[in-house]
Amino acid sequence: MSFANLALQTGMDAIVTGVNLVWVLTVTFLIFFMHAGFAMLEAGQVRSKNVANQLTKNLLTWSVGVIVFFLAGAAVSTIVGGLTGGGSYSITGAFMGLYSPEAGSVTAWTDWLFGAVFAMTAATIVSGAVAGRAKLRAYVSYTIVLAAVIYPVVVGFTWAGGFLATLGFHDFAGGMIVHGMGGLAGLTAAWIIGPRMDRFNSDGSVNVIPGHSLSFAVLGTLILAFGWYGFNVGTAAAPLAMDGGEVTLGSFSYVGRVALVTTLGMAAGAIGAAAVALQKTGKVDTLYVANGLLAGLVGITSIADAIVWPGAIVVGLLAGAQLPIVFGFVEKRLKIDDVCAVFPVHGSAGILGALLFPLFATSFWNGSASFVGLAIPQIAGVAVITAWTVGATFVVFRIIKAMGELRVSAEHEREGLDTSEHGVDTYPEFGKPDTLTDGSGV
Amino acid sequence: MSFANLALQTGMDAIVTGVNLVWVLTVTFLIFFMHAGFAMLEAGQVRSKNVANQLTKNLLTWSVGVIVFFLAGAAVSTIVGGLTGGGSYSITGAFMGLYSPEAGSVTAWTDWLFGAVFAMTAATIVSGAVAGRAKLRAYVSYTIVLAAVIYPVVVGFTWAGGFLATLGFHDFAGGMIVHGMGGLAGLTAAWIIGPRMDRFNSDGSVNVIPGHSLSFAVLGTLILAFGWYGFNVGTAAAPLAMDGGEVTLGSFSYVGRVALVTTLGMAAGAIGAAAVALQKTGKVDTLYVANGLLAGLVGITSIADAIVWPGAIVVGLLAGAQLPIVFGFVEKRLKIDDVCAVFPVHGSAGILGALLFPLFATSFWNGSASFVGLAIPQIAGVAVITAWTVGATFVVFRIIKAMGELRVSAEHEREGLDTSEHGVDTYPEFGKPDTLTDGSGV
Amino acid sequence: MSFANLALQTGMDAIVTGVNLVWVLTVTFLIFFMHAGFAMLEAGQVRSKNVANQLTKNLLTWSVGVIVFFLAGAAVSTIVGGLTGGGSYSITGAFMGLYSPEAGSVTAWTDWLFGAVFAMTAATIVSGAVAGRAKLRAYVSYTIVLAAVIYPVVVGFTWAGGFLATLGFHDFAGGMIVHGMGGLAGLTAAWIIGPRMDRFNSDGSVNVIPGHSLSFAVLGTLILAFGWYGFNVGTAAAPLAMDGGEVTLGSFSYVGRVALVTTLGMAAGAIGAAAVALQKTGKVDTLYVANGLLAGLVGITSIADAIVWPGAIVVGLLAGAQLPIVFGFVEKRLKIDDVCAVFPVHGSAGILGALLFPLFATSFWNGSASFVGLAIPQIAGVAVITAWTVGATFVVFRIIKAMGELRVSAEHEREGLDTSEHGVDTYPEFGKPDTLTDGSGV
Repeated sequence: MSFANLALQTGMDAIVTGVNLVWVLTVTFLIFFMHAGFAMLEAGQVRSKNVANQLTKNLLTWSVGVIVFFLAGAAVSTIVGGLTGGGSYSITGAFMGLYSPEAGSVTAWTDWLFGAVFAMTAATIVSGAVAGRAKLRAYVSYTIVLAAVIYPVVVGFTWAGGFLATLGFHDFAGGMIVHGMGGLAGLTAAWIIGPRMDRFNSDGSVNVIPGHSLSFAVLGTLILAFGWYGFNVGTAAAPLAMDGGEVTLGSFSYVGRVALVTTLGMAAGAIGAAAVALQKTGKVDTLYVANGLLAGLVGITSIADAIVWPGAIVVGLLAGAQLPIVFGFVEKRLKIDDVCAVFPVHGSAGILGALLFPLFATSFWNGSASFVGLAIPQIAGVAVITAWTVGATFVVFRIIKAMGELRVSAEHEREGLDTSEHGVDTYPEFGKPDTLTDGSGV
Repeated sequence: MSFANLALQTGMDAIVTGVNLVWVLTVTFLIFFMHAGFAMLEAGQVRSKNVANQLTKNLLTWSVGVIVFFLAGAAVSTIVGGLTGGGSYSITGAFMGLYSPEAGSVTAWTDWLFGAVFAMTAATIVSGAVAGRAKLRAYVSYTIVLAAVIYPVVVGFTWAGGFLATLGFHDFAGGMIVHGMGGLAGLTAAWIIGPRMDRFNSDGSVNVIPGHSLSFAVLGTLILAFGWYGFNVGTAAAPLAMDGGEVTLGSFSYVGRVALVTTLGMAAGAIGAAAVALQKTGKVDTLYVANGLLAGLVGITSIADAIVWPGAIVVGLLAGAQLPIVFGFVEKRLKIDDVCAVFPVHGSAGILGALLFPLFATSFWNGSASFVGLAIPQIAGVAVITAWTVGATFVVFRIIKAMGELRVSAEHEREGLDTSEHGVDTYPEFGKPDTLTDGSGV
Repeated sequence: MSFANLALQTGMDAIVTGVNLVWVLTVTFLIFFMHAGFAMLEAGQVRSKNVANQLTKNLLTWSVGVIVFFLAGAAVSTIVGGLTGGGSYSITGAFMGLYSPEAGSVTAWTDWLFGAVFAMTAATIVSGAVAGRAKLRAYVSYTIVLAAVIYPVVVGFTWAGGFLATLGFHDFAGGMIVHGMGGLAGLTAAWIIGPRMDRFNSDGSVNVIPGHSLSFAVLGTLILAFGWYGFNVGTAAAPLAMDGGEVTLGSFSYVGRVALVTTLGMAAGAIGAAAVALQKTGKVDTLYVANGLLAGLVGITSIADAIVWPGAIVVGLLAGAQLPIVFGFVEKRLKIDDVCAVFPVHGSAGILGALLFPLFATSFWNGSASFVGLAIPQIAGVAVITAWTVGATFVVFRIIKAMGELRVSAEHEREGLDTSEHGVDTYPEFGKPDTLTDGSGV
């Protein structure tokens, strides 16, 4: 659909554009609100001495990232899409289409903002993995690269029409493109930066460092779930469409499936994680339930438009159930200190959902597609996005590390990043700064 | 309106469906977000040793309940509606209409989700009443029965076309069906389970056990008020309609009244509670103001589409004013430990609003209906819903109690449910676990 | 557009009204939710002994204010608009248009509510300035006057068609009318009431009294930013319009600009404040970043529909950068204790944005307006709103002060307003009431 001369739109064209914009703007705001969710979820999972640091990172991820994504990232997506997908593209056009849209192109900037809130979701996930020891400048530098290049390249390969799109890779709302990418980047970053002090003992055993507030963590979870309805259901972004001169239902012809499947996946995720926690420890760990709910959402995100609903329950259960197991694997085997469990929640759950697609695809069940035909693009997509994200993140963090700018000093880590990096005390009237003994679990 | 072949909708039909879906989905998300409100409101009102327990219950209410409501509850509503309302119905059809909607029925699943968020609101209210001593498994078991049967039967009697609907019972957005039901269930549950230890002294005097955070309680209140606009105004769920082949305003022809009356009722509720608190103690208790605002909302919810606006101020003031009084009655006379005041906020306020309807109904004031003609269905509706809810909840909780599964041990209650049921400490860096002296008010 | 007989609207008229109402109601709810943002932002910035007081003020600002604005304020706007703008008006009509809209005027009450959420935003800003020492009754009394007269007069001069509108004063979404007004009122109020005890030493030096929770402050910031999308983008309030019998895009023909510019201004505000803080202290103060983000939003609010996008980055950077500087000036030079920095965030940032308009106006850059022609109305608007707001607020607070009702006793201030005014302890299980030594910074 060409948007030339849209300002002159009248009649049915105006109605379609108006209704679609009401919807897209509303869900864009919801997705933006996920930053409050991430801020609370992550702040709740760090020590009280590092809370302000985590909150500042969240604020700056959005603030720095969204400007970078406007000035560079979005255009990079378009260019990479054209380059790798065989479509036509113009480097100048990619930038000027945003800097100076042609008169009448009323949706150029709203479309950009809709894309930007997805991009910033991917960006903010990383901060949870490197909490409690990354220098602010290191984190912000990585965010700039992520917003300008790393994420835009992933989108270029896929949503912007690149070679994975051509191949048939299916990722409806970004289960792999946004969450998988963010989770993999976080794991890589946490690996390079190394664990927090006292996280692992010299004999290889593990100390649990509990977050300072489950209340904030659960609040963040529920804010995220709220915003996620915008993320998933909102990706059915064109309620109405023009077809042969007549208004028809656009993406709202299947929006009910997205809404149902998102709900079932989320619910099953919480149950799956609760069940495994109960089986392992005899108790229903609150944080596993919360993160399981999110893992269920991540698992369903790439496939919410195109699976049979019982599949949502299965995917959700598995995405929730893998959480405690993968978290334990990352912690005990890989010895990576993924503070906010961003890999099991966003990474492995996103990969799982994308790979399970063929099994539950409506097109498989109604016979219009073959299992193998569906599976190959999914495996290719997961592999390419994983390789690119891990590789690019590895390079950036290694460079920052080589410059000696990655990690705060041991002294600063001990006293907490709130004091050393921000000069503030998050709770000046409560508690005491904890010294030395982060690993004691108290 | 038949939705057959909706996928083929074009032109005006598509526009009506598209616009109505944009609205219904948006308000559905807002209502879902009320879970964050309930979580914060209730967490703020419990002791710090029981916060994670309360949060887990909220997460599981949604997660378990919504799946049960999809697999069973919604169909039970339809069946009970048909059974008791004299309409035609099919048991298979009730289930299959959700499990496998006919092609083209684009709103089957969005309509279900819109109903589900109301159902889960009723469910989650109960958790606030039994806080601090119910076993997780007991609460989850009751939630399953509530989502599968207890609430669906109430909806069957009313919104699904059952005998109370036939009788003319008016409950616009669920002031009685959702909130009254939840508040009554909570009171019944709190009665059966008995008070928290130290809540009442052997001489019959009362100990106040203050919640751990007014900040979270007020945050929850404001999140709930936000979501409530979705709840009430969103129940005007069909902005547009088709009438004789032409598009007309559907429920948006009266949406202004709903929006105004909801606003005035909420505001008057806070003022009513503040005034009574000021009169009783000389001070304006923050928690009464917050809960009064919610009671005002509950009071107005059943009648927000059909009363004159000065009635909203009166109903709101009364709903707020009754709160401290009913709370005192429940506590001091009934000796029931309704931890989060769910009965005065949701129960008695909901009953009050439903019963005051005839006095302020636009149809009464414009002479198109008689006071008695309006009053009888309201009294019948309140009586039936009360009897059913209290009776069913009584039976379920008595059975769980008889199985010895209702209440945690005294030792677990003393150390807090966070440790005993979930193995977590909500605030590991703050405060100390309080032992023995819950009743000391410190 | 006349709304007579709107209940009879059919066809395209019904579609336009329905779509516009879906949008206006949605953004109205978002703007309402900003009260949760203000509550958290302000509560986080006060001592723990004054948290419940701050929360109660927020609840009562809304509850009392919105009823006053319905019964009086909105009509006063209309009357002042007619009086000063030369339009026709009727005093009876102004009130009766709300109390009893003519049949078919479906948007009278939704339009009122849309105006009311802006009014209450202005009102609630003041509470942050006088935190920690104002009597509840003093604050509520001022709120009544603000909602009935002070704010409505400002709206009368401007949006309601008064003389500033005639002059060409441009304030799209209330950067000056709402935020500038609120910030100026707060500064005036804080000046009259005097600083908190221990805030300034007898030698003129300054004690920092840190707020009790950066977590709540940042949560509030992000809730506000979420609601602000409703505030700004929502002010493009008529997605569709009728033009010559045909549907056209109404305010959505420029909504993309509003959305983009709001985003860039917000982001640049956080960066501007962070940069100045870093330059001044070598550290990135979290609260400056958060408040800088808000100042960027305030700065852009009056001009978001009509500036070139690079202007948004400049305005945002300056609005953020001025925050630490103006805050220091108010504190160190004026010796005014503006607890929550409402003047630098809402006042000076609002003034700045309004005055910078000519420099970045699209009409200036495309040659259709002259710099001077744009500048004069902006200067006049800022001057008039400042003079009126400061003058009226001065008079009201001086009267309350003369009655001895403005400020709590020193004893009550020391023990905290939660106990003395509300009889509650916000966090009964944490911390201790701090005595005497507020100024110690601990």
